Amino acid sequence: SSLRLHRWYYSRLCQWGLGLAIAVVLLLAFVEQPSSLSTSSDPRYRLPPWEPPCGLTEGIEALCLLVFTLDLAVKSYLIGWEEFRKSKWLMGYTVVITASIIDWMLSISMECDEKLRVRRLLRPFFLLQNSSLMKKTLKCIKRTLPEIASVILLLALHLCLFTMIGMLLFAKTDEPERNGEWGLYFRNLPQAITSLLVLLTTANNPDVMIPAYTLNRAYSIFFITFSVFGTYFLMNLLTAIIYNQFRGYLMMSVQTSILRRRLGIRAAFQVLRCQGTRAAVIEQVRVDTVLEVMYKVNMKSYYRAAIIKEVQQRASDVHMDHKAFGTLFEQLDKDRVKEHPSPPQYNYTCLQKIQLIFSHYYTTLAGNAVALANVICICTILVLNAEKSTAERNDYYLEVINCCFIFWYLLEMSLKLLAFGLRGYLSYRNNIFDGFLTILLMVLQITILINYSVPFSKWQPISHAMSLWDMVRLINLLIVFRFLRIIPDIKLMNLVASTLLDLVKNLRAFAGILVVVFYVFAVFGIWLFEGAIKPPTTMSIISNSTIENITSNYTTTCGTYEQLEYWPNNFDDFAAAIILLYNVMVVNNWQAFMDAYSRYTTEWAKVYFVCWWLTSSVMWVNLFVALILENFIYKWDRSHSCSVTDMEKTRYET
Amino acid sequence: SSLRLHRWYYSRLCQWGLGLAIAVVLLLAFVEQPSSLSTSSDPRYRLPPWEPPCGLTEGIEALCLLVFTLDLAVKSYLIGWEEFRKSKWLMGYTVVITASIIDWMLSISMECDEKLRVRRLLRPFFLLQNSSLMKKTLKCIKRTLPEIASVILLLALHLCLFTMIGMLLFAKTDEPERNGEWGLYFRNLPQAITSLLVLLTTANNPDVMIPAYTLNRAYSIFFITFSVFGTYFLMNLLTAIIYNQFRGYLMMSVQTSILRRRLGIRAAFQVLRCQGTRAAVIEQVRVDTVLEVMYKVNMKSYYRAAIIKEVQQRASDVHMDHKAFGTLFEQLDKDRVKEHPSPPQYNYTCLQKIQLIFSHYYTTLAGNAVALANVICICTILVLNAEKSTAERNDYYLEVINCCFIFWYLLEMSLKLLAFGLRGYLSYRNNIFDGFLTILLMVLQITILINYSVPFSKWQPISHAMSLWDMVRLINLLIVFRFLRIIPDIKLMNLVASTLLDLVKNLRAFAGILVVVFYVFAVFGIWLFEGAIKPPTTMSIISNSTIENITSNYTTTCGTYEQLEYWPNNFDDFAAAIILLYNVMVVNNWQAFMDAYSRYTTEWAKVYFVCWWLTSSVMWVNLFVALILENFIYKWDRSHSCSVTDMEKTRYET
Repeated sequence: SSLRLHRWYYSRLCQWGLGLAIAVVLLLAFVEQPSSLSTSSDPRYRLPPWEPPCGLTEGIEALCLLVFTLDLAVKSYLIGWEEFRKSKWLMGYTVVITASIIDWMLSISMECDEKLRVRRLLRPFFLLQNSSLMKKTLKCIKRTLPEIASVILLLALHLCLFTMIGMLLFAKTDEPERNGEWGLYFRNLPQAITSLLVLLTTANNPDVMIPAYTLNRAYSIFFITFSVFGTYFLMNLLTAIIYNQFRGYLMMSVQTSILRRRLGIRAAFQVLRCQGTRAAVIEQVRVDTVLEVMYKVNMKSYYRAAIIKEVQQRASDVHMDHKAFGTLFEQLDKDRVKEHPSPPQYNYTCLQKIQLIFSHYYTTLAGNAVALANVICICTILVLNAEKSTAERNDYYLEVINCCFIFWYLLEMSLKLLAFGLRGYLSYRNNIFDGFLTILLMVLQITILINYSVPFSKWQPISHAMSLWDMVRLINLLIVFRFLRIIPDIKLMNLVASTLLDLVKNLRAFAGILVVVFYVFAVFGIWLFEGAIKPPTTMSIISNSTIENITSNYTTTCGTYEQLEYWPNNFDDFAAAIILLYNVMVVNNWQAFMDAYSRYTTEWAKVYFVCWWLTSSVMWVNLFVALILENFIYKWDRSHSCSVTDMEKTRYET
Repeated sequence: SSLRLHRWYYSRLCQWGLGLAIAVVLLLAFVEQPSSLSTSSDPRYRLPPWEPPCGLTEGIEALCLLVFTLDLAVKSYLIGWEEFRKSKWLMGYTVVITASIIDWMLSISMECDEKLRVRRLLRPFFLLQNSSLMKKTLKCIKRTLPEIASVILLLALHLCLFTMIGMLLFAKTDEPERNGEWGLYFRNLPQAITSLLVLLTTANNPDVMIPAYTLNRAYSIFFITFSVFGTYFLMNLLTAIIYNQFRGYLMMSVQTSILRRRLGIRAAFQVLRCQGTRAAVIEQVRVDTVLEVMYKVNMKSYYRAAIIKEVQQRASDVHMDHKAFGTLFEQLDKDRVKEHPSPPQYNYTCLQKIQLIFSHYYTTLAGNAVALANVICICTILVLNAEKSTAERNDYYLEVINCCFIFWYLLEMSLKLLAFGLRGYLSYRNNIFDGFLTILLMVLQITILINYSVPFSKWQPISHAMSLWDMVRLINLLIVFRFLRIIPDIKLMNLVASTLLDLVKNLRAFAGILVVVFYVFAVFGIWLFEGAIKPPTTMSIISNSTIENITSNYTTTCGTYEQLEYWPNNFDDFAAAIILLYNVMVVNNWQAFMDAYSRYTTEWAKVYFVCWWLTSSVMWVNLFVALILENFIYKWDRSHSCSVTDMEKTRYET
């Protein structure tokens, strides 16, 4: 029964349910108070969002917690008490679930009125706990920390040293016209450190040196030395250190999985041997037993077919030894060669000719050329119409052109269907993409034709013109998307694009950690800064359509949060907080946020932003670069593996 | 005589002279018209700089060109006509020298009045041509170009696609309050492409999405998708591609140099054999011949001593075969073990005790602690004095404290001298740095004491107070510099710092290419944009000391060149052009420059800036990252080489 429980627990349905529960519990943050369900996050135009009634989110959360408790119970039963005590992750899981339940009960008893929900901060743990890949990556990061710390220490020393030199260089003098640098960036110690810290991220690069540089060229040396050493040397050294740690990470995980599989095959052999010929001294399994098992086993049909074929070739023997048994499964290492169904046979010469023409490579090229022509048409009309508003625009010609093109796409699709047959057509992923978009386009086009002036008279932008324009816009967007089908046909791009696709596969662990980090910081940010920034209410609503208004309306300093109208970037709800954190991660102009929050709250707000900068921009982006390097080089080495291993062999021989 | 010419040509003096000529010819750009010899590069305050009289720079240049012609003649004589015809570099050298001479003659005939000096553009070629390392690096870059081009093509496609989608999404509508995004960033095709190109560099990150994001949260998805795919994926893929090309670059160059050395040793053996025992059939050299040659040969004294010692150990044999001869030179691979001279012997117990104390490790620690205390003192006083101007400041206490500390440093130095002896003291590089700064500090301190109030009365900031404050400032700066001596004493930092030092050694080729690229673009920029931007002359001079003035004085838009007062960044002279190019390379706010120059000249100015961005920020910075990665990993592998090769061996054996 333990084995059956194990099977049931690791079945697809069960794991999928667990994943769903984790996703739901994480997504609750968008709905819970403060809710993110408003169109705009700008406090000036934001309507009061729909707030879920007390008990709704709590009810869903209770269900999820129940699922997690069950999960914990099953897991601990399966691995046994001894193993459970040793595993720190499971202990942590227990603690987190307990804490969440206590906090949940508190929340219910206070009728959803409490401010501090500790369990929101604990939720990302469920995500971490459930993925072995993420745990492995975390361990890898942990190993790198001492070296990263040493570089960050060096960075801090660099920063302090240059702050002192800067304060000595740009001290206040008696001549007020020479105090520009001092007044704006080096007035006191915190300001000087902030200025140089921001310069380290290059976010205030030319600005910070302008007042001094205006007076004397030589001052630029100070800033350039600081940037070159800090930003280019030390920051990239950090990348190198992190990459060095992750080098061979993929290779190792592949090796581990191969090792595990061999172990599994060997174990299967032993089990089958026991069942088969218990008395025989020679270690062998019966071929028919293997066949029987293969039909029952749960694996991809393609590989199953390949292995069964292999077994049937040996059907003449009664037994097979463990070597032969092992070679069976080498089929798994072979890449799946996709076979396209053979095209249908036609009797008419006319149809055969069409088939010949439309299965030819040049037809694809011609199709791409037509798609390109269509995109160029749209582009031209866009450029011509750029300055016109919807009412002035005449969509008649564009609509006619699009109609023709869509007709051609339909024709192309149906002829291809004729040439390849339905199954042959669908066996190319490219065609699925193509066909789906073509059908969508046709449906949209028919809707437009039905709604507006069915007899093709001159186009009339009548009352519901907005909706028409939206529909044309949608069609154009789809046509532009459809143009992406050219990517696999350009060889160089195909390589790059396939690297990117592979990368996405290997990225899940990193994306998971990113989600965890974003989640924790966003929840923290909402605790600390919710509603901290209040925009002036007397401001005229949306007056930034013309450039003149911007400068005349406000008397705020250029480059500040207020002047740049960063109002929608705030910590008032979860979605807005995530966008704000993303903007800080991208680093450009992050000093505006830091400055605004330290002005509206306390100076200590800077600590939060610097922490986020360190974790996101310094740590995570470097991790990401390391991952891309690792992936690309792994792929490169694998595609050149023959030559590389040959080279290495010859090197060892000589 | 050909051999003697070869020797003479590759002698240190000759190569040094050639290097000097290259440096001089490159540095001429700072002096030539438009001369960079003014304090400020801001056209508002710039005094007319000293212009060299016609013929001065031309004279110097003629001398340099003469040197290059000689160089070319000797080189072509040495390698022979056949080889000369094959070498593209030498052919190019000939063409460049000829063109320079023709241009120079033109310039002289027009009495230095011509605008277009083509030879300025050709000068960097001399630098490239003279360094084999740079040529090798260039070849490496050339090999990478096809792959880089494919990624850049993908980037261009990405940009075009998103531009179209963006223009469709943010088209002009009938409601003027919803046109913010259209008006500011997507008004027409060039503007839309520029906006998204700048977003690719993240230089306008939150700004570009603010108008749309204020209306609806969902618009942020468009911008985030664009940035994540373009900036994070594709740009880092470029880094990966470039790194992949440079992987093993260092290893290979080390292997090549070892191979060359072996070849040289073997050749030397053959030569010596001929001289020695011409009749003998066995390939052997006489040991005394080897000794004789070793005394004459030109190499580092340390290695020579080691090899001679090795030879003398075999003095009992008369001959040595080629294996033994080869092993002699393995001494070259061994790292030099620095031996410090033994400390002097003293007879007095008192002196011996001092010696014992001051050669102890804790003394260094104590010295570091004192230096730290001094820096903290300076920092405290700086923080206290931050808001005071020079006149209000009382430097008395700081001066007294510094006096004490400097006295302590002198004492420490002299006691260490006593403990180690002069040669022992100087054999530590750390001590040289320390002692030099201490002596400098002492000299400065004495100057101050002599000039101001020798009897130590209350400090009086008299007439020449400015100079006093400057001197105190200099002392403080030197003390802060002296504090750097702690770096080798912190183990982690020592590792990182030594990596950086190694990096600098390997960086010469890259720095050379950077110089070439900067030079060419700066000269081009001066041709194209000299004097293009004229600041308004009616502006009140330097009024940016207080924040209020900035916004009230100008009615310019925020974030533009004019509002940010980027006037000193221009192409009016060479030095200013280089700083401007550096600022564009750092990428932050580069759109301000691009926008300003395209407004003051034509739209085509953007092409220049985009080209520079591609070569500097995209290509060169990625090259730099690749180099750092390569260096760090090479160093890491070498320091862990035992374990790594062992691991590899075991892997191959199993």
